[in-house]
Amino acid sequence: MEEIKTFRNMVKKQKSYAYFLQLTGWDSHTEAPEESFKRRAEMVGRLSGDLFEMETSEEYASVVNHLYEHIGELDDELAREIRLAKKDLDKIITIPKDEYVEYNKLMQRAQKIWEKAKADDDYESFRPVLEKIIDYKKRFIAYYGSEKLPYDVLLDEYEEDMTMKDYDAFFDALKKDLVPFVKEILKKQPKRNDAFRKATYPADKQKDFVRYLMKVLDYDLNRGLLKESVHPFTWNTSPDDVRFTVRYHEDYMFASVFAAIHELGHATYEQGVDRRFDDTLLSSGASMGIHESQSRFYENMIGRSRAFWAIHFSELKKCFPEQLKGVDENDMYQAANKVEASLIRIEADELTYPLHIMLRYELEKKLITGALDTKALPMAWNKLMKEYLNVTPESYSEGVLQDVHWSGGMFGYFPTYALGTAYAAQIYHAMQKDFDIDQAIKDNRLADVKVWLNDRIHRHGKRLSPKALLKKVTGEDFNPDYYINYLKEKYSELYE
Amino acid sequence: MEEIKTFRNMVKKQKSYAYFLQLTGWDSHTEAPEESFKRRAEMVGRLSGDLFEMETSEEYASVVNHLYEHIGELDDELAREIRLAKKDLDKIITIPKDEYVEYNKLMQRAQKIWEKAKADDDYESFRPVLEKIIDYKKRFIAYYGSEKLPYDVLLDEYEEDMTMKDYDAFFDALKKDLVPFVKEILKKQPKRNDAFRKATYPADKQKDFVRYLMKVLDYDLNRGLLKESVHPFTWNTSPDDVRFTVRYHEDYMFASVFAAIHELGHATYEQGVDRRFDDTLLSSGASMGIHESQSRFYENMIGRSRAFWAIHFSELKKCFPEQLKGVDENDMYQAANKVEASLIRIEADELTYPLHIMLRYELEKKLITGALDTKALPMAWNKLMKEYLNVTPESYSEGVLQDVHWSGGMFGYFPTYALGTAYAAQIYHAMQKDFDIDQAIKDNRLADVKVWLNDRIHRHGKRLSPKALLKKVTGEDFNPDYYINYLKEKYSELYE
Repeated sequence: MEEIKTFRNMVKKQKSYAYFLQLTGWDSHTEAPEESFKRRAEMVGRLSGDLFEMETSEEYASVVNHLYEHIGELDDELAREIRLAKKDLDKIITIPKDEYVEYNKLMQRAQKIWEKAKADDDYESFRPVLEKIIDYKKRFIAYYGSEKLPYDVLLDEYEEDMTMKDYDAFFDALKKDLVPFVKEILKKQPKRNDAFRKATYPADKQKDFVRYLMKVLDYDLNRGLLKESVHPFTWNTSPDDVRFTVRYHEDYMFASVFAAIHELGHATYEQGVDRRFDDTLLSSGASMGIHESQSRFYENMIGRSRAFWAIHFSELKKCFPEQLKGVDENDMYQAANKVEASLIRIEADELTYPLHIMLRYELEKKLITGALDTKALPMAWNKLMKEYLNVTPESYSEGVLQDVHWSGGMFGYFPTYALGTAYAAQIYHAMQKDFDIDQAIKDNRLADVKVWLNDRIHRHGKRLSPKALLKKVTGEDFNPDYYINYLKEKYSELYE
Repeated sequence: MEEIKTFRNMVKKQKSYAYFLQLTGWDSHTEAPEESFKRRAEMVGRLSGDLFEMETSEEYASVVNHLYEHIGELDDELAREIRLAKKDLDKIITIPKDEYVEYNKLMQRAQKIWEKAKADDDYESFRPVLEKIIDYKKRFIAYYGSEKLPYDVLLDEYEEDMTMKDYDAFFDALKKDLVPFVKEILKKQPKRNDAFRKATYPADKQKDFVRYLMKVLDYDLNRGLLKESVHPFTWNTSPDDVRFTVRYHEDYMFASVFAAIHELGHATYEQGVDRRFDDTLLSSGASMGIHESQSRFYENMIGRSRAFWAIHFSELKKCFPEQLKGVDENDMYQAANKVEASLIRIEADELTYPLHIMLRYELEKKLITGALDTKALPMAWNKLMKEYLNVTPESYSEGVLQDVHWSGGMFGYFPTYALGTAYAAQIYHAMQKDFDIDQAIKDNRLADVKVWLNDRIHRHGKRLSPKALLKKVTGEDFNPDYYINYLKEKYSELYE
């Protein structure tokens, strides 16, 4: 079909424009000077305007629609691509260009306003922007005219086919089993040798240890690099260019080390995607949830395991002989898994983490339906914090202003963090059937883990939907019990 | 005129595409991972192909030609822009797109081949590529069909309106006055306290000193940044984003420090261009020669002056108390101006530097006319080295393979280095009439120098041709005597 060729060429062109926008994003988040952003916003506006025109052009729409009508005649991969293209097209084509441009401009401003509001602990200075963003979200959903519920449209953007119904079932299970369990654990205050958590760890030595971790986890430096930024993130344009960042907290080394292992999980995923998807819509990871499953697998199942520190603690100690004097690998394992009722999501331990997500999910749901307005949001936040973790923020920056997501219009994103973490437990269970993971960690054979994940998950890119992929990998549908059992088992033992 | 609006919009669009290509170049030269280049070449090929199409489109050509016909009715700045646009258009429009794309692909390969040839000291592996590049250059000149001599076409690309006749006169003056003077100086071997030149200087301390220099020279870090790369360079997209790089040579600190001051000269120029040129063809510096005049002014007239080290040597000593034990500011001044017959251009001192350029100019001229072929090139190189500096390279990498320029197709570029250095002396003479420069340096009032240069040179961008600008700044046409006299005076005193 001639249309296939046309489609391929158009996608190729769109991807090349996206490539330059992505590269600009990398620069913006890692080193672009303060005063460069004004002109940059204009430049990005122009190129993304051109990209928007391509993505909504009559020619592109007609070719996608034509292929969609003939989807039964296409091979599986192309059919999958056309399905994804059709979904994006149907959504974006309903948005008037002016509004799209205005929204993107707002996004650029919003982030700065949020940053300032957070620094000043001034929710009211951010509230009107938040209001506008929610308005835009609702309006775009209305343009789209889907039969789905509005919040379901957003959820689907971050995790294909996931709905409130699915998430409610997941979070209800967590609420039922985990909230009381967490409260039990929090009551226990075992005496631990863990003062070293708060020692001072020089950044350059932390960097040495992160470099060591890159080797241990088999990250390919010929196809990526390590850099610093305020918020750690992974970035990629193709499997041959996958970068990640870390921030070195001198007063909290644990945050840097586990963030590095987390990002290495994301980065290993992207380095493992098959290159043949480069110029297709199937490049990059399957979904936010599947992506998070890989980062959490690395961070929690590997990085926070007893086996991991049994073999790698000596190297950490080499980097910090003073700070870790009198500390042994068991102390390290316990300290890396210390449970605390904290206010800040990104500092939360593995056990309390999903409760932070649950809270955000509940609030987003109500913000989008209109059951909650932005004025009442901070108090609603605090109420749920009290309910789930029995702590109360004393400032907006420790509460409702703490995350970047809403200022970036990312409603529907948060739940994928908890979902991905739960996927990781289910994947762990499946992998365990094939080989003894702890033994592989202890033998420093993490390449085995990587090969397994690569074969079953990484290399496939977006070839399968997240639901189909999880089923293929684990042999069953998503089941939160693996996650709940994993947490209960691990933390019962740690706090027995 | 409607055409003016169309022209403005088209230039704006071209500039935004160029912006992303430039940003990609910055990334390529500072941190992009090895394996990312293959896909990058494709991406750059696509976007620069789109840019080429815009630059050669019938619509753009007709609007430029129309405005060129009505140039008398335009204001000075627009007229200048149209003249520049017309010149570029007439040249680029004659090149078949396929050949243009092929040439650009060759450029990407050529650099890597040159790097390898240089590392392997294997001229023959680079020669066929060099041959091809020269062929392309000649062919493009033939397409252009100018009445100018071929090498004059190339010279004009790097320094508007400069011809072989002009350069011959300039280099003849140098040859006559400077070659014998250099030979005299080289005979003298005064006893000097300069062993510290070859001490080991840790990179992180060098970086501290470069940060100090940024403050002294009033570089605005809100509109730029300092980074490391193999070859130092300055990069900019607008006055609000001007970055530069340094390489820290632990075994030769002088190279890092003077390269930093040099790049700060370029960077200060770009930070000073008027923002109203951002979306015009008049943005950025006036020419390669004028640009080099600013970097050389900073590097030589400021950085290698007695006054500069009188005030800043104490800071250098603070960074390197061990290495500089027993060294005083006079030793530093002498060491910073030590004359040596060296083989490598970028390591050459101020006095012998122009002879390295003269040699390249002579050879390029003959390569383009065909009087010299690539086979005979290395020997011709060595012969001139012997004649001008009485030294002979013992390898290709110390001789004909040392510079990146030819592998990048940059024929006609070298002479602007010497020309710009000579401009700097003429500008120095003009500035000296307004205030005592040495005194300003000694008083740490380098802001005065910057303000003077900004007012007369930087802010004007490409508003004037380099010839017109130099005349406006100094009150006379280019005159190499200022340069020759400056060198003779300085080095006679240093080597008396």
